[in-house]
Amino acid sequence: MKSYRKELWFNIETRRQFINITPQVNSCLRDSGIREGLLLCNAMHITASVFINDDESGLHNDFEIWLEKLAPEKPYKQYRHNGFEDNADAHLKRTIMGREVMIAITEGKMDLGPWEQIFYGEFDGKRKKRVLVKIIGE
Amino acid sequence: MKSYRKELWFNIETRRQFINITPQVNSCLRDSGIREGLLLCNAMHITASVFINDDESGLHNDFEIWLEKLAPEKPYKQYRHNGFEDNADAHLKRTIMGREVMIAITEGKMDLGPWEQIFYGEFDGKRKKRVLVKIIGE
Amino acid sequence: MKSYRKELWFNIETRRQFINITPQVNSCLRDSGIREGLLLCNAMHITASVFINDDESGLHNDFEIWLEKLAPEKPYKQYRHNGFEDNADAHLKRTIMGREVMIAITEGKMDLGPWEQIFYGEFDGKRKKRVLVKIIGE
Repeated sequence: MKSYRKELWFNIETRRQFINITPQVNSCLRDSGIREGLLLCNAMHITASVFINDDESGLHNDFEIWLEKLAPEKPYKQYRHNGFEDNADAHLKRTIMGREVMIAITEGKMDLGPWEQIFYGEFDGKRKKRVLVKIIGE
Repeated sequence: MKSYRKELWFNIETRRQFINITPQVNSCLRDSGIREGLLLCNAMHITASVFINDDESGLHNDFEIWLEKLAPEKPYKQYRHNGFEDNADAHLKRTIMGREVMIAITEGKMDLGPWEQIFYGEFDGKRKKRVLVKIIGE
Repeated sequence: MKSYRKELWFNIETRRQFINITPQVNSCLRDSGIREGLLLCNAMHITASVFINDDESGLHNDFEIWLEKLAPEKPYKQYRHNGFEDNADAHLKRTIMGREVMIAITEGKMDLGPWEQIFYGEFDGKRKKRVLVKIIGE
């Protein structure tokens, strides 16, 4: 069994943003040399997300509005977590979007459907954060 | 290490539906001959879901009403994604329900709790779609 | 390839509670002797959750209020599932929080970010329930 590990670093300039990280994850897979197995890609921070969806800017705008409706950023004082922090909403938004994705590796490629793209979802940016890529297989 | 891959195809006649796919996934596991490992089952489409819950029709009705409340289908024009599409709500509903499940394989069986059943959740049907089953182990 | 399996049992005295199970999962990993691989930790019940977030009591209070807003427990009769049951809300809450987490194992340790802690989320307690820990690797 082979295993591979890499951290991807991000420093988003805004509070919230979605970034298509499919090319970086593909690059990890090529480096690993693994042809059959499973790939885990997870946010290492609890106010960020890794998820799979469509790379369509209208949809990303819909996600932003929808997440603000389900878990509004303000007023900050509606959340007990926001004593010394202001990011309780980011913990909730990331819960909706998910922490991680698992991707099958088949014949040396990520076994994704036609529109599946991997995103880093930042909900409390303006600081350095990491995503973990771990691959096991042969 | 052994690995196994199969696509399950669906062509749902309605826009939304839940289908218990536990028997098909079990059949994949038997075909694989894998006795210890991990099984990934994921929707290959971004308006569909694979999730684990109870096979109880009242609950499925509750899910339908609840998802419509959290991410209503109409009016279509509330979503920017719905320029040439009408399925933005399906992307949001699938986000709530999840893309994938991971299942432990122990002594040749899916290691599920007493009420755990695997479902395909369709949120934008009337077309052919796929679910991926990938198993690795020994 | 090595594999390891253990059930963690819980009997929560209240309907809802979050418990940090990181020490128990760490103990499983030590017992397994696995140094490189993947760890699956999932609720075996469909009204409970395993998720990763912050171990901060204010945030846990925010989660409780937020989940009650998104999927209220009462009135029980708003849910069709609540014929002989009263726990439909627990199925919905667990859907938001998620069934499972996947954790990379690197050099014999759980490869978690600085604030990542693993929680058992109970949404229909006062009964015995189980969490599964499955680890595969070398």
